[in-house]
Amino acid sequence: MAPPTPRTVVPVDLKKKPWEQMLHNRWHPEIPPVAEVKSGEVFRIEMLDWTGGAIKDDNSAVDVKTLDLSFVHYLSGPIRVTDADGVPAKPGDLLAVEICNLGPLPGDEWGFTAIFDRENGGGFLTDHFPHATKAIWYFEGIYAYSPHIPGVRFPGLTHPGIIGTAPSKELLTIWNERERTLEETGHQSLKLCEVLHARPLANLPSTKGCVLGKIQEGTPEWEKIAREAARTIPGRENGGNCDIKNLSRGSKIYLPVFVEGANLSTGDMHFSQGDGEVAFCGAIEMSGFLELKCEIIRDGMKEYLTPMGPTPLHVNPIFEIGPVEPRFSEWLVFEGISVDESGRQHFLDASVAYKRAVLNAIDYISKFGYTKEQVYLLLSCCPCEGRISGIVDSPNAVATLAVPTAIFDQDIRPKTNKVPAGPRVVRNPGIPQCSYDGNLPTTKNPCAAI
Amino acid sequence: MAPPTPRTVVPVDLKKKPWEQMLHNRWHPEIPPVAEVKSGEVFRIEMLDWTGGAIKDDNSAVDVKTLDLSFVHYLSGPIRVTDADGVPAKPGDLLAVEICNLGPLPGDEWGFTAIFDRENGGGFLTDHFPHATKAIWYFEGIYAYSPHIPGVRFPGLTHPGIIGTAPSKELLTIWNERERTLEETGHQSLKLCEVLHARPLANLPSTKGCVLGKIQEGTPEWEKIAREAARTIPGRENGGNCDIKNLSRGSKIYLPVFVEGANLSTGDMHFSQGDGEVAFCGAIEMSGFLELKCEIIRDGMKEYLTPMGPTPLHVNPIFEIGPVEPRFSEWLVFEGISVDESGRQHFLDASVAYKRAVLNAIDYISKFGYTKEQVYLLLSCCPCEGRISGIVDSPNAVATLAVPTAIFDQDIRPKTNKVPAGPRVVRNPGIPQCSYDGNLPTTKNPCAAI
Amino acid sequence: MAPPTPRTVVPVDLKKKPWEQMLHNRWHPEIPPVAEVKSGEVFRIEMLDWTGGAIKDDNSAVDVKTLDLSFVHYLSGPIRVTDADGVPAKPGDLLAVEICNLGPLPGDEWGFTAIFDRENGGGFLTDHFPHATKAIWYFEGIYAYSPHIPGVRFPGLTHPGIIGTAPSKELLTIWNERERTLEETGHQSLKLCEVLHARPLANLPSTKGCVLGKIQEGTPEWEKIAREAARTIPGRENGGNCDIKNLSRGSKIYLPVFVEGANLSTGDMHFSQGDGEVAFCGAIEMSGFLELKCEIIRDGMKEYLTPMGPTPLHVNPIFEIGPVEPRFSEWLVFEGISVDESGRQHFLDASVAYKRAVLNAIDYISKFGYTKEQVYLLLSCCPCEGRISGIVDSPNAVATLAVPTAIFDQDIRPKTNKVPAGPRVVRNPGIPQCSYDGNLPTTKNPCAAI
Amino acid sequence: MAPPTPRTVVPVDLKKKPWEQMLHNRWHPEIPPVAEVKSGEVFRIEMLDWTGGAIKDDNSAVDVKTLDLSFVHYLSGPIRVTDADGVPAKPGDLLAVEICNLGPLPGDEWGFTAIFDRENGGGFLTDHFPHATKAIWYFEGIYAYSPHIPGVRFPGLTHPGIIGTAPSKELLTIWNERERTLEETGHQSLKLCEVLHARPLANLPSTKGCVLGKIQEGTPEWEKIAREAARTIPGRENGGNCDIKNLSRGSKIYLPVFVEGANLSTGDMHFSQGDGEVAFCGAIEMSGFLELKCEIIRDGMKEYLTPMGPTPLHVNPIFEIGPVEPRFSEWLVFEGISVDESGRQHFLDASVAYKRAVLNAIDYISKFGYTKEQVYLLLSCCPCEGRISGIVDSPNAVATLAVPTAIFDQDIRPKTNKVPAGPRVVRNPGIPQCSYDGNLPTTKNPCAAI
Repeated sequence: MAPPTPRTVVPVDLKKKPWEQMLHNRWHPEIPPVAEVKSGEVFRIEMLDWTGGAIKDDNSAVDVKTLDLSFVHYLSGPIRVTDADGVPAKPGDLLAVEICNLGPLPGDEWGFTAIFDRENGGGFLTDHFPHATKAIWYFEGIYAYSPHIPGVRFPGLTHPGIIGTAPSKELLTIWNERERTLEETGHQSLKLCEVLHARPLANLPSTKGCVLGKIQEGTPEWEKIAREAARTIPGRENGGNCDIKNLSRGSKIYLPVFVEGANLSTGDMHFSQGDGEVAFCGAIEMSGFLELKCEIIRDGMKEYLTPMGPTPLHVNPIFEIGPVEPRFSEWLVFEGISVDESGRQHFLDASVAYKRAVLNAIDYISKFGYTKEQVYLLLSCCPCEGRISGIVDSPNAVATLAVPTAIFDQDIRPKTNKVPAGPRVVRNPGIPQCSYDGNLPTTKNPCAAI
Repeated sequence: MAPPTPRTVVPVDLKKKPWEQMLHNRWHPEIPPVAEVKSGEVFRIEMLDWTGGAIKDDNSAVDVKTLDLSFVHYLSGPIRVTDADGVPAKPGDLLAVEICNLGPLPGDEWGFTAIFDRENGGGFLTDHFPHATKAIWYFEGIYAYSPHIPGVRFPGLTHPGIIGTAPSKELLTIWNERERTLEETGHQSLKLCEVLHARPLANLPSTKGCVLGKIQEGTPEWEKIAREAARTIPGRENGGNCDIKNLSRGSKIYLPVFVEGANLSTGDMHFSQGDGEVAFCGAIEMSGFLELKCEIIRDGMKEYLTPMGPTPLHVNPIFEIGPVEPRFSEWLVFEGISVDESGRQHFLDASVAYKRAVLNAIDYISKFGYTKEQVYLLLSCCPCEGRISGIVDSPNAVATLAVPTAIFDQDIRPKTNKVPAGPRVVRNPGIPQCSYDGNLPTTKNPCAAI
Repeated sequence: MAPPTPRTVVPVDLKKKPWEQMLHNRWHPEIPPVAEVKSGEVFRIEMLDWTGGAIKDDNSAVDVKTLDLSFVHYLSGPIRVTDADGVPAKPGDLLAVEICNLGPLPGDEWGFTAIFDRENGGGFLTDHFPHATKAIWYFEGIYAYSPHIPGVRFPGLTHPGIIGTAPSKELLTIWNERERTLEETGHQSLKLCEVLHARPLANLPSTKGCVLGKIQEGTPEWEKIAREAARTIPGRENGGNCDIKNLSRGSKIYLPVFVEGANLSTGDMHFSQGDGEVAFCGAIEMSGFLELKCEIIRDGMKEYLTPMGPTPLHVNPIFEIGPVEPRFSEWLVFEGISVDESGRQHFLDASVAYKRAVLNAIDYISKFGYTKEQVYLLLSCCPCEGRISGIVDSPNAVATLAVPTAIFDQDIRPKTNKVPAGPRVVRNPGIPQCSYDGNLPTTKNPCAAI
Repeated sequence: MAPPTPRTVVPVDLKKKPWEQMLHNRWHPEIPPVAEVKSGEVFRIEMLDWTGGAIKDDNSAVDVKTLDLSFVHYLSGPIRVTDADGVPAKPGDLLAVEICNLGPLPGDEWGFTAIFDRENGGGFLTDHFPHATKAIWYFEGIYAYSPHIPGVRFPGLTHPGIIGTAPSKELLTIWNERERTLEETGHQSLKLCEVLHARPLANLPSTKGCVLGKIQEGTPEWEKIAREAARTIPGRENGGNCDIKNLSRGSKIYLPVFVEGANLSTGDMHFSQGDGEVAFCGAIEMSGFLELKCEIIRDGMKEYLTPMGPTPLHVNPIFEIGPVEPRFSEWLVFEGISVDESGRQHFLDASVAYKRAVLNAIDYISKFGYTKEQVYLLLSCCPCEGRISGIVDSPNAVATLAVPTAIFDQDIRPKTNKVPAGPRVVRNPGIPQCSYDGNLPTTKNPCAAI
């Protein structure tokens, strides 16, 4: 009488290479589905971590420094979705995807957070932290702790970093054109301290490292798709790499459907992430599984979404967050305004303001026994909230970063007439880190004692 | 034995003009304190609404359209703070200000939210909504409702929009120089759809409308200060107009001290505000009172703040949020990416992404029986959360706007195979609105049916 | 255009005696209304503390020991409620009362918590704590602290202890008969350790101390009503003294209507209370005000309530709790089972189980620098939760008491291999306390060192 | 480098009979450990449902009616706990057990809730609901729904119903003596409507159905232990069947240690339970797994627990609830007072008050399209909260039952001037139910129309 245990529609094998499995790392309408599910059915998808196992559980950051970013992210899918009668989702529908459950894969209960080298991936603060750095996290059920960042432990608000539907040919063309334009014309010379020094500006289609599921590398079909298919780095109209940290158990995602069957793909599981995922590989990255349930809302795009953009395809997904998430009641909030580290005034720029808020938080928390790199990694992956608090009071945007105080084993609030409770000496300075061998300038703090 | 009822150190008289009272509307180290409080003492400050009573409880938006922005915001203070022994706060200290209680002034239990005219204040979406528009809100205890926006009612997370300490002479000079530079050099021609069309870029010191508390207008002292004093529009290193919507009962604000006595000022009370305060005058603006308690953390700036900026003065306040706030458990979340309304790709620009998220939310919610202006106003003042979800996945920043579903009298979630529950006809189209008489272009939605 | 500031329909004067004001301290259908309100109108009621000012803000508990309980609780009302057309609420309707706002009276921001003498009021643990004891609390906005119980401070979940409608003649008769039966037949000799030693078993109608609002003492009408009117001590079908600690801002109370106009009365304001209000006068008792809004649900009793009792009058109110309350995320939970202090096994008795849970909590927390009386008072008034966790596993009921850890200035959780952080010496043993002069036996803990 | 995946120290095989596995269903100091764990190690325990698979996923309640209660509950353990150096926990220590994770066993994602026959187990309301009744629940990840109770779906606050340490010989003797005394002397004739009609009053040691892990049935050792060992029905000083519904992921349990090694056992997994577990088999009962981590607090019993009872063994565990649980923000609260269904007045009896609160809730919710049995089952297993709101206002204890409104697919709040939204016709009357064949009287509601 009971419905069967959720069927695993996409299994992964942690011992095999990612390209030996039915995975894909591009968005394209012609990547064929690897499985089909019915509306209302609970099904299970397994996934590798976003690098497909390239980052190891060890004490060296060399793997981070040298990671080939051309083959990320490995996604599981596409999944073709039909209604109970077998009629597939159609362009113009909305696909409501409920996250019934999710977690790490048994036997692989660990993850990593990394700062990428300034010239290979970078990150939000790459002008301050150009070195490849890595922290390993171990899981105790719902909790994570790191031997590299002592004194913190927190429950994960686990979520898939990437979930999306396949783009139509038309939408894919829009993506490729606008990103190419940026890449070709957007290289105005950013000054130091400005946001953001990460390069490239956009990741255009590339056959290098391309994996397309059932389509064999080297075939003409593969060549054609690989040359057109969008990279998975940015989030776009189809969802994709939206990195919304609250998409955990009990959430619902309303995705627009652009191709018949919807062709749902997902990947890049995060044990936990802070708003912004500031260190680029900033979540606790891991392999994992999802249990999902889909419903098709027929004509839902027209019914619910009127894009404010040049075409009816310029839409964005909607998300629904339910009551099932860890709640913290006390927060320490750091503020930034849109004045950059050199003292230059920017005009209502929320990115600059958020950068200052994160820098302020890093500085403050580091006083309690941490290196700045440790805090940068921590703020990338702990359940902190990044808010746009004010965006209208010229010329300063105000952004805030709220950190839950309960994740620390010490009271990190300011005290009256007292030095902070924490040791001034870093508790564990031995975080895996590489040298930065490039010669781009970095931002130094003129006020720092050291 | 009981401590006395909190002493009102700054009273206001709603029947008098703001300039007839001991208020001020500029930041300057030489504005003399109007009161003195001791560390640990609970005291009361009253304040006018930010316009000093210029916006009326009526059905016309003409007062919004024609408001003279040179005299905002009227602040209460400065308050000189000493320790229990009478020794004042000193530059380099931190001033911890606890908000023990706050609320509207008895007999004045109403507020307003407004969209300003594109050429007089503007707002985050002024290229879409150039008309001056106004909504009046009435309070039923902790709840607000508006005759102009039917079907919503919510408890207020009431807070002061502005709270800050006086700048030192040196800090004031830094402000004036950097803002002047922006004003003089920052007028690159922003294209339509780009963020942000509000003008001016910065509000430089101006004697027009200047009110300086105890210092009489027209005296040489007044002339000097008025020419130097910073405007109150943006939040800065001293706190100021930070518009953090969670600074309600039970919060604590750690403000840097730049002048002897700290010279604390506050104003711009909000009954409720959404993150971003997107409509510019976007909170529910009101007069009100605060009950505060201060503590001095001696040398706290050095102890807790290491600025990441050119001088030791380039700091930002820290805030602490406690367990005492309305909590909502279910949220509908709208997403935006840094592709603007014309389809142009921007590089990791959180402001553009947030603009798209807000536009998406306005479009969606308007389907449930509202004009877009009503929703724009609503999202400015209801307890919605604006998040920077992803800021590293080139080229798209991802921002989200989360709206608590419980504030509506209907279920606004998407439904399977159903049109929305709400009426397609706007329930109350009669929101006070003026014509826009300028000739700047506006952004039209090419996808909208109408 | 704004609705007027809420009209004060029942004012109180703190300088006058309670019997000199239009208050009442009995339930009876013939106590005439003192005011009338319309459905939808927000109105204000002021109230004295439950003793009418008999307990003082001082360092002696003599006033507690000698309090004449015959004249409590002083209630404000009755309020006659009509619909918008002036038609009054009718028997069989439900009266929905929303609490829009509430708080202390300006100038009277303090309260008290007391343990009553075993022979004058008693309390849940009166066999353990027979001495009259008192703690004074001062308010700092939403926070309370006590000079008598150092190291705790918490936001109040302020609520009226008593809110109810007038009973009909028929319902009043039911009350008087069943309580008289208990009083006359229920005096089986309770053994020590059993719940509960408080006396009397019921408080039957009594002319002593009776105050009836507009009805003059000594008139024949007064004599008649005073002899029939129910005391206000227990909660009953009309609501009354239900002491539900979550009935704060934003709550709604659905009260059955038994007489024309509903005749709503309220009193016994609590700044804060723990579930169970275990010390009898266990909340932080204060004077205060309420802002209420009523709606009439016509025939709501029939529509929504089918009593499980001998008559259609044997109903109970329904309450609705909203999102607006302080939330604590971390709790220490104490358990009790239905084995009493003498080791005797009771059969699924939740009262005995709860008594043990409270005793366990008192013992534990007292290790952190408190006398047991201090903790008993604290657990009566802080926002702790008393739960019936198991009521079916013969023979042990399981009850729990959950205490939010954030109210303490120290970490009260058990630590591995460490003595508790708190001082073993009581921080302030000078809590006001009287001798117990009776000769009833008390329960001593055979395991306690002292 | 990563710690190994948690070791499964107690596996179960769902295809085998419970007595063919190393389980036990009694408490006794001499039941030998089946595994040993170290302090700090995360380990996994699997468990059968409390009946060992006797209740089936079908549409008949005959299995409930005829269940042999002599062999419940099947527990997993005992687990011997040592510190990192291999020194076992000692009597007088506290064992801190953290619940790192838990859930259903893969392939067995369903559960059941049952009302037991009045003469075989009964329940809190057995005089009202004497028929054996059953509801099956299916899980969709963290959510449960029932084909027998349509229109509700909720996330589980999953927890073990039973967790405890082995009693010492001395403690076991205390238990057996006090329970025997109750059984022998406690049969005062309870009247109808009084709490509680379940029989027997206590479940004394019995060799029938006894399973003792490694000890073979029929051996002299088995005979001896089986005659002495305590049944697992009630919670006691060692923890045991405490049925605290919040003991989910992230909770910590501080258990007293009575024998060397602590001998921890656990069982009776609940997918979800309401406070009180009113229908006796009232949680959603299931098989499942736990991931636990233990720490030993040396001498913690003396340090933290001073029993208020005749011996130092009369203690109770302490629990710690963390931030990781589903939170609901809106609740409908039903109240009961200590007047029973016949109208009889009881003296401050929280059990009677809670019975009335539950009856009120059942009556109310049944108006929205349910049979009363469906609601009784629902209130047993959904995350509702049972509170002791007042326990001092003679003669009425006040108990409340708070039901989260978000679990229903309709708005169940009272509406002004409207019949409830729900259908008056029961949506699915076909809940599995047996006849009651006994001849004990039942409590009928004289006010009910039907």
